[in-house]
Formats: sequence, C-alpha cells, structure tokens
Amino acid sequence: MQKMEEIVIIGGGGAGLTAALAAKRTGSDNITLITKDHLSYSPCALPFVIGGDIEDFGKISSSIEAICKNSGINCLLEEVLSIDAEKRIVLTKEKEIRYNKLVIATGGSPAMPPIKGTHLGGVHTLHRIEDAEKIMKAVPKAKTAVVVGGGAIGLEAAAAFIERGLKVTLIEGLEYVLCRLFDPDYCQTVEKKLQDHGIELIKGKFIEEISGAGRVQSVKIAGREIPADIVVMSTGVRPNTKLVEKTGIELVGGGIKTDEYTQTSIKGIYAAGDCTITKSALTGKPVPSLLGTTAIRQGTVAGINAAGEHAVFDGVLNSMLLKLFDLEIGRCGFTEKDAKAEGMETVTGRIKSSTAAEYYPKGKWIEVKLIFNAKDHRLVGAQIAGGGGVAGKVNLLTFAMSKKATVEDLIKLEYAYTPPLAPSHNPIVLAAENAYRKIKRLEEKDKRKN
Amino acid sequence: MQKMEEIVIIGGGGAGLTAALAAKRTGSDNITLITKDHLSYSPCALPFVIGGDIEDFGKISSSIEAICKNSGINCLLEEVLSIDAEKRIVLTKEKEIRYNKLVIATGGSPAMPPIKGTHLGGVHTLHRIEDAEKIMKAVPKAKTAVVVGGGAIGLEAAAAFIERGLKVTLIEGLEYVLCRLFDPDYCQTVEKKLQDHGIELIKGKFIEEISGAGRVQSVKIAGREIPADIVVMSTGVRPNTKLVEKTGIELVGGGIKTDEYTQTSIKGIYAAGDCTITKSALTGKPVPSLLGTTAIRQGTVAGINAAGEHAVFDGVLNSMLLKLFDLEIGRCGFTEKDAKAEGMETVTGRIKSSTAAEYYPKGKWIEVKLIFNAKDHRLVGAQIAGGGGVAGKVNLLTFAMSKKATVEDLIKLEYAYTPPLAPSHNPIVLAAENAYRKIKRLEEKDKRKN
Repeated sequence: MQKMEEIVIIGGGGAGLTAALAAKRTGSDNITLITKDHLSYSPCALPFVIGGDIEDFGKISSSIEAICKNSGINCLLEEVLSIDAEKRIVLTKEKEIRYNKLVIATGGSPAMPPIKGTHLGGVHTLHRIEDAEKIMKAVPKAKTAVVVGGGAIGLEAAAAFIERGLKVTLIEGLEYVLCRLFDPDYCQTVEKKLQDHGIELIKGKFIEEISGAGRVQSVKIAGREIPADIVVMSTGVRPNTKLVEKTGIELVGGGIKTDEYTQTSIKGIYAAGDCTITKSALTGKPVPSLLGTTAIRQGTVAGINAAGEHAVFDGVLNSMLLKLFDLEIGRCGFTEKDAKAEGMETVTGRIKSSTAAEYYPKGKWIEVKLIFNAKDHRLVGAQIAGGGGVAGKVNLLTFAMSKKATVEDLIKLEYAYTPPLAPSHNPIVLAAENAYRKIKRLEEKDKRKN
Repeated sequence: MQKMEEIVIIGGGGAGLTAALAAKRTGSDNITLITKDHLSYSPCALPFVIGGDIEDFGKISSSIEAICKNSGINCLLEEVLSIDAEKRIVLTKEKEIRYNKLVIATGGSPAMPPIKGTHLGGVHTLHRIEDAEKIMKAVPKAKTAVVVGGGAIGLEAAAAFIERGLKVTLIEGLEYVLCRLFDPDYCQTVEKKLQDHGIELIKGKFIEEISGAGRVQSVKIAGREIPADIVVMSTGVRPNTKLVEKTGIELVGGGIKTDEYTQTSIKGIYAAGDCTITKSALTGKPVPSLLGTTAIRQGTVAGINAAGEHAVFDGVLNSMLLKLFDLEIGRCGFTEKDAKAEGMETVTGRIKSSTAAEYYPKGKWIEVKLIFNAKDHRLVGAQIAGGGGVAGKVNLLTFAMSKKATVEDLIKLEYAYTPPLAPSHNPIVLAAENAYRKIKRLEEKDKRKN
C-alpha cells in the first residue's frame, strides 16, 4: 500500500535526521541520508557543555551512521556537490544518487559581520560541535571573553563563560538583548540577571575591529578596547542555500521557500530546518525560525510527505525557551513591537504570580504577559519569565494561539491546582482577566465616542 | 450602565467569595456576603500545614470581613436559616435580607460511612480549618494514624502524617487509591510512592468499626485491629443542600442543578462550588467536581451573571494535580474506564520522557498517557506523572480537550525547547504519535475487514 519511493535526504541535523526517521516510520524502505557530518547533536546543547552543566560532548552526540543503521536507513558520509533536479540525481564526489523524492536539510551557517580580525585565533562561532570543542580547549587558558550578539546562543555562551570563571563582556548592537524576541520590559529582566552575575553589557553599539597578532587580544568598540582571550561571534545564522542555486528552487528572504507540505517550488523536493524560510502562523508571511523545534516539526512533515502520506506544516509562532542562571524565560507569537509593525492595535494583560500557592514557601516567582488583538480579542503574543514553570505555560499559550484562542477563552480556562505546584488562581487566567478589563474599557470608550 | 442589583451571596468559601469579588468587579455596588465562617482559606492547603510544609494556619487564612471591607462588599457573619424564593428574602436568626439576585455557595460536608465509633475522640474529618487545627494538636501525642479513603485529601493527609513521623495506614475500599481519577497503571505509581515512604496500604476492604473508650484506640478491618491514635475519615464530600430543600430549586445527583450560566432552576438564583453538581465538558452529563478550581470558575461566572453581565460556564474536565512526596501527578477528562462506561472505543498513547533534554543531568522523569476517541480522534483523557513539569502539561491538555483537539492537532503541536527545561522532542507530541500509529493500524485493519 505504501509507495516505495526512493527518498534521498541531504543533511544529518535535526531536520534531516527527523525527516529520515519520519519517512521510515511512514513505511518507506528506501531512504538514503547523505551527510558530511558523522555526529548527531542539538546545537542548543553546546553552551551547556561549555558551562559545565553537561559533562562532555560525548553525552550530547551520537553517531548518525549508527542511528541510521538501527533504523534501516542508508547513510552516506559524503558531501553533496550538486543537485540535478531535471534528472532527479544528487551528486557527491564519487556517486550519483537517484531520488524520487528529495529532502533538503542543509542547515544554516553563522553570519559574520564584515569587520577586521574575525580570522584571528581565539575568535569563534558557536554553531557546530567542532566550534564548541575549540572553545572548551581555550577556556582553561583564558581570563576574558567577549561575546558579540545578544541572541539566545550569545547569552547562553556568556552565561557559560561566567560559570567557568571568566570575565565576560556581551555586545549587542541593538537597544536590548533578545530584542527581536521580547519587549523591552522582558529584555530588561534578562539584562538585570546577566549583570547580577557580573556580565558587562555594551548595547546599541557595533563592534569595530578584533585586534591581535595571530591570536585575538582585544575587541574595539566605541573608543574602548576590551581585552579578550576568547571572542564568540554570535551574530545570526544564514540559511545554507548554495546547493539549490542552479536547481531552479525558489528562495524567499534568503532561504528556501516551502509550502504547507514543506515542498519547495519543485514538486517532489522538500526542504526543512535552518535552510528554509518558513511562514508565520499568525500572518502567513514568510519568516525565519532557526529553532531546533521548527527543524524537527518541518522534518517530520517533510519525511511523511516524501514517503507518500499526507502531513501539513502550519507555520511557526516561534515558541521559545531560555534558561540563564536561575531565570527561565519564554515567548511565542508577536511582541508588542511586532504587532505594531503589522498595524495591529493590541491590549496587554500582565500579572505577577507564583508557581505555587502564594503562602507555599517553596513557590517561585512568575510573570506572565499576554498580548491580544484589540479588535478580535485573539491572543497574538505571550512572554513569560520566572524562577520556574515557564515551559508549560509557553507551550499552553503557543497551542492556544495556534487554536486562535481569544481573551474570553483564556478567562474561562480550566486548570489544575494544588498548593505545592500551582496557585488556586491560574496566572494565565489572571493575566487574561487583566487584559479583558482593559479591552472592555477601550470598547466602552469607543461606544461613548460613537 | 450597570444595573444596581441587590446581590446576596450565601457562603464565604472559594465559590462565594469569588462570586462576590467578580460581581464587584463587574460593577455591582450592592453586594452582601453572608457567611458563618470568619476565615477564608483553601481547604487544599490543610494537609500541607499538618505536614509542616506551611508554618501555621495563619499563613493560609485571612479574614473574610477584611477582604469584603477592602472590596466594598457588605459582610454578614451569620448563619442563613432559610431562603424565601417567592419573596426574594434570605433569613438569618436576626435579619431578613432582600435580594434581586442570589448566589448559593454553601459548599459541601464530609460524608461519613455508617459505622460504629466515628463519634470517638481522635476521629476527624479534614475539610475545615477547625478539623486541621484539632489534628495538629493531636499529632505530637500520637504514634499511629489511620486514614480512611484514598482520594486526594486522604493521600495528602497520609503523606503529612509520615512527614510528622507517625506510623500510617491508609484504607481504600476500592481496588486502587485514586481509582476514580486515574487508571490502574497510574494508581499503582502513586501506591508505590506511598509504600516507599512507609505507608501501609489496605485496599478492597471496608472499615468495619472504630473502637475505643472515649478516644479512638484502633480501627477494625478484615479481621485485623489496627492501632490508631488519630483517624482521618476522608470518604467523600456531599453537597450542602439543606437550605434549598423547600425553595423549589431542583437538585440533580444530590447537588444543586445549574445551567451554563450557573443559574439554578429558579431565575435569578445562582449556585457555585461544592453545593452544585456541574456538567462534564465531554458528555454534557451532570457530574460532581468538588475541586477548588471549579468553585472559583463557577463563582466567577455566577458573580458576573448576578451583576447583570454575561458569562458562561462550559463544564468541567476535572483537571487535577497532586503532589505526594516527590511525585507529581495530574489528570483531566476520562480515564480509560470512564470512556468504556460511555461506550467509547479509545486508543491510548504513552511515553516516558524527561523534563529536560535526555542528556541534561538535572532533568526529572515524566510519563504521559493520552486517551483518544478511536472514532473521531479527539483527546478525551490525559494522565501525567513525574518528578516535575506535570502542572503545565495537565493545563495544556485540559485546554486542548476543551478545544476539541485531535491526535492530529497534538502531533503538530508547536512547543518550546531548551536543554535544561525541556527535551527537543515534546513528550505530549511523542505520546500523541504513539497513539496516532495505533489508530492508523486499527483503521487499516478495519479497512481490510471491509
């Protein structure tokens, strides 16, 4: 009943490997995964090995060949040189591999700003396990580290260096760290946590040069020269699209364009993970995601579809979680700024609460911010910070958003309570009630006007 | 704009107080709360004071009069003797209080099995703060405790006595503890945890007699005589409906019948909390809830409607959480047994996972069980146990169920990931995938048959 497609998958990262396994589970028996990397790992784990939470790189990685072998997937440890979409052939140095269905999961590569000195020894990106291994080797001899870029990986790297006893400076070119993901109030909570742990923040300024002779010695920024034994450049990731350049596969926003089946502009060729530009589940517009979870979700859909069954990828709300020291922070959907950029009037509900009943001594603080569309009352964004319990709330709110939940839905939320694990009044409900009252006031004001 | 209804609320527990505050927030200025109790507290907190997690009863209680005063609500500390629904009057010993809208929130009372000796000193229920205070006084002199009833409060009481160094026996008349809330596999996880902490379990047998002269000395069951300095009878709660007996207000299943506005069979009279029988959000049939969260949710709706605005109560999935020692356990919707009783064929997805990435050392175990309707693929039940992270998942699954989510919805779930706080493969998605494959196999088998 299942079609025996010859499925070829390029890339052994989260998206590629997930696609291969999903195709296998769907019933396909002829799957070939081609990858130049022999290790499977989550890049998100790298800062936690550097920081010492995880013992060594062996703990986070496993052999792609072994995974494939155990699952009955062919594995070729080679580099793909080109794709011939006409002949349905993938070329490596030595082989021509025929496919009926192709999944492209070539990942992304660190973007590097065009400044002097990025080639110097001691200047790293933190994208691959090899990067992290080099950084690990450098840490024992280092006293100072400069991290350039206040995104998730940059902040985790900065925290890791603090755990390892280094003096750390974090440079963010924009006004706040994480400012594409959170509104200023939540960014400031993060910045305070970093500063409380001794990280020096330099914001709103761009790095000018990395200096040194052979090895990095300092970073120049705004007239200052900051000593640096290690520099981590964490200034974004760009989709790897070189392989598709001459295939006729369409790009959008610098990544591979995919439809709701994760299919590219060429029938039978799918793409998943960091090499793609996905779409916003809120606006339907193309957006980058660059999250491991998106790679896994897209990979699953690509694998199932390549194997001849039917699966749909609904886009992303870019649901995300971070842990920095004892601070948990998460988000999904629009920030207030994002909503404004879409021309959307919003109402925000906020609450400070606890992960336990207010009188229960072991409870941890939690703050919930919910952003609603003032017109149709739909939840469009959420930001949560606290000492615990953030993951579950982010996931609930992401799901609520995907189900087009309104402020009225969240007020009515049924939830569970027991003093040690949850307060009797759910923080999401309280934040929704806060927004609801504001919406009602707005609407009454509008009524009086008319 | 708001109608100035004279709202009278009978009862100062979770439902009554919430109703008063909700009516106030909705804009009502003439609210009278009548209660014979002067303290507001969550009965769920009582075992945690006895166990020592919470320092004293002062921490969990506050003055109802003070809350009312701060909120501009009239408070009468009196007992209501009768309701005259014709004249719209509530009678106390000294007063006649007129109402336009009435909210009945008279709560419930412990049900006591018809056995000898329940009147003896040292035999307690654990429903009110006064009960817990008596138990607290008895604990320092006690060596042995017998808890009768393996529901939530019974188990928490048993755990509390262990924390206080007593020898504890727990008696459950049915086959498993918590067996109305969980399926046997999850009940057994709980039982193992109780036994690991030294609690003796006696199941499938009913207590025959409580013996003693003035004070309890032992409990007789199945030919055994179990020494007991303290006995806690935790054998269920019955709705307090005496006040409505002659009013013409309809009952159902022993509790006050309410509609989706929490209105009773008499217009303008609402009811909320343990005195009501609510309805199942899955079947629409009347079910008891007896949860503090249900009281709060019904109270909110009753208060808003009594104040002349519009709110709807959608029923309950009886979303619940428990913490016993280091075990977190939660549930919502149907058990497999419940579904069977409804004549529903189900498919169950299970997974064992972690609260963190599998390689992250501080992760805690978690088990997710999802029950789907085999026909329409809708989620109808969830049970979760683990060392952490249970609350958020129970709430997500409760919401998913209220939104009629299917196994296909949960497979596509977008979620957040970071190694210290969540695995890259979400346990809910994995459990849904497990169920999905079973459903597909079932459907293919059916196809082949036809």
